[in-house]
Amino acid sequence: MSSPDVQIFPHATGEAAKTVEKHQEPQDLIFYSGWFCPYVQRTWIALEERGIPYQYVEVNPYKKEKHFLEINPKGLVPAVEYKGRALYESLILCEFLEDTYPAATPRLLPADTAERAYARIWVDFVTKNVVPNFMRLIQAQSPEKQDAARADLYKGLRTFADQARGPYFLGDEFSLVDVALAPWIVREWVVVENRGYDRAAVSDPWKKYADLVEQRDSIRRTSSERQHFIDIYGRYLRDEAQSEAAKAIREGRAIP
Amino acid sequence: MSSPDVQIFPHATGEAAKTVEKHQEPQDLIFYSGWFCPYVQRTWIALEERGIPYQYVEVNPYKKEKHFLEINPKGLVPAVEYKGRALYESLILCEFLEDTYPAATPRLLPADTAERAYARIWVDFVTKNVVPNFMRLIQAQSPEKQDAARADLYKGLRTFADQARGPYFLGDEFSLVDVALAPWIVREWVVVENRGYDRAAVSDPWKKYADLVEQRDSIRRTSSERQHFIDIYGRYLRDEAQSEAAKAIREGRAIP
Repeated sequence: MSSPDVQIFPHATGEAAKTVEKHQEPQDLIFYSGWFCPYVQRTWIALEERGIPYQYVEVNPYKKEKHFLEINPKGLVPAVEYKGRALYESLILCEFLEDTYPAATPRLLPADTAERAYARIWVDFVTKNVVPNFMRLIQAQSPEKQDAARADLYKGLRTFADQARGPYFLGDEFSLVDVALAPWIVREWVVVENRGYDRAAVSDPWKKYADLVEQRDSIRRTSSERQHFIDIYGRYLRDEAQSEAAKAIREGRAIP
Repeated sequence: MSSPDVQIFPHATGEAAKTVEKHQEPQDLIFYSGWFCPYVQRTWIALEERGIPYQYVEVNPYKKEKHFLEINPKGLVPAVEYKGRALYESLILCEFLEDTYPAATPRLLPADTAERAYARIWVDFVTKNVVPNFMRLIQAQSPEKQDAARADLYKGLRTFADQARGPYFLGDEFSLVDVALAPWIVREWVVVENRGYDRAAVSDPWKKYADLVEQRDSIRRTSSERQHFIDIYGRYLRDEAQSEAAKAIREGRAIP
């Protein structure tokens, strides 16, 4: 079924376009991406951060192309085709890259197993607390709902930043915890310009953390130009977006 | 704050009580449990299935005991204290046990990395689809809401069973996918007796799968007598339960 989202800008731009250009050759790992999608960016950051060979394929997840649906019936990006096998879910893909390319550095999960569990606990916090609050703030229409959503988002980010050891969440090493949150840091400008969000108003530790993370090479190399996001986020800001995540937030369900 | 849930029966019974009895000695790994909690049972099944040494400590998660809150500020069970470190979240704990006790058999995640990702995708399906639908059915008050919730639950279970290779989800090997779902199979009787649920009405593959899984030793050894669940589920069936999960379902949020 057609939806407004079908009209999104067709490809990555800026730094991200240069990265796409470098990943056109066939590889064992095919990365099915949507340049604008924050979940996609999580997996893309992991690929770039660790220097894993991959072939980039742009997919419009709202137009379900036949081959893409064949390999990934769920039809969502990010997805990976690896030796004929289709895998999806952004964080599961990041874990898959850890497991499948153990020699690629840096590892994004700690070697110590208790520390690894601790990292997964905070990845889970980002997914269950920060991301839904960010989307609720964008999709909130009344000033009252926007104030409530902003307060919830600030609270979650404050909790996160208070636990961050610095400079990155786990300390000196950039990890999956930072990867899980980074795409929403990159998109903060949407709520700055439209929902009265202010990085400094969250807390000093949060501002310090976010200012550092957004400068990370792997994150800049997977980020497109803001102007092309404007149509996409316009639909979210009017609460008209038809993505599965947008519908879930609208209907008070968990993001699939 | 006190809540009706504070009055729950204080300890495991039946097969589960025998298992608790065997795990009173101090160990490197302390397992903080609530005998009635399906999330707890996931981690407990993994511990029992793999023969990992652990000390069982019963906690009433609604009465936040001081030491428990010190080691686990989130105050939720299941939690693990391992060499002075507190970890929580049922599936993260199962992964922690895989990582920390690699020699314990059976492994619950496949060695092949793509197959491991596939397993995690279906664990995720259980968590995001089956479990919330099960809880919505229990908490649904009007016949219309109950019919809708039952239909959603049947649909999810049918999808799951259609993908199961048999006899277990991944095939011959019992895995984390089965562990993730098993505690709700054990609790199916609640919706059978109160919400018109019928295992056979879901699908033949589902009935075959569920009939097998509920007989697994590690699952029977971690299951208490039904009679002691009745007060607890009565609060869910009247939609009066005060657990975080119950409140999340009531308010249309993701289960924390």
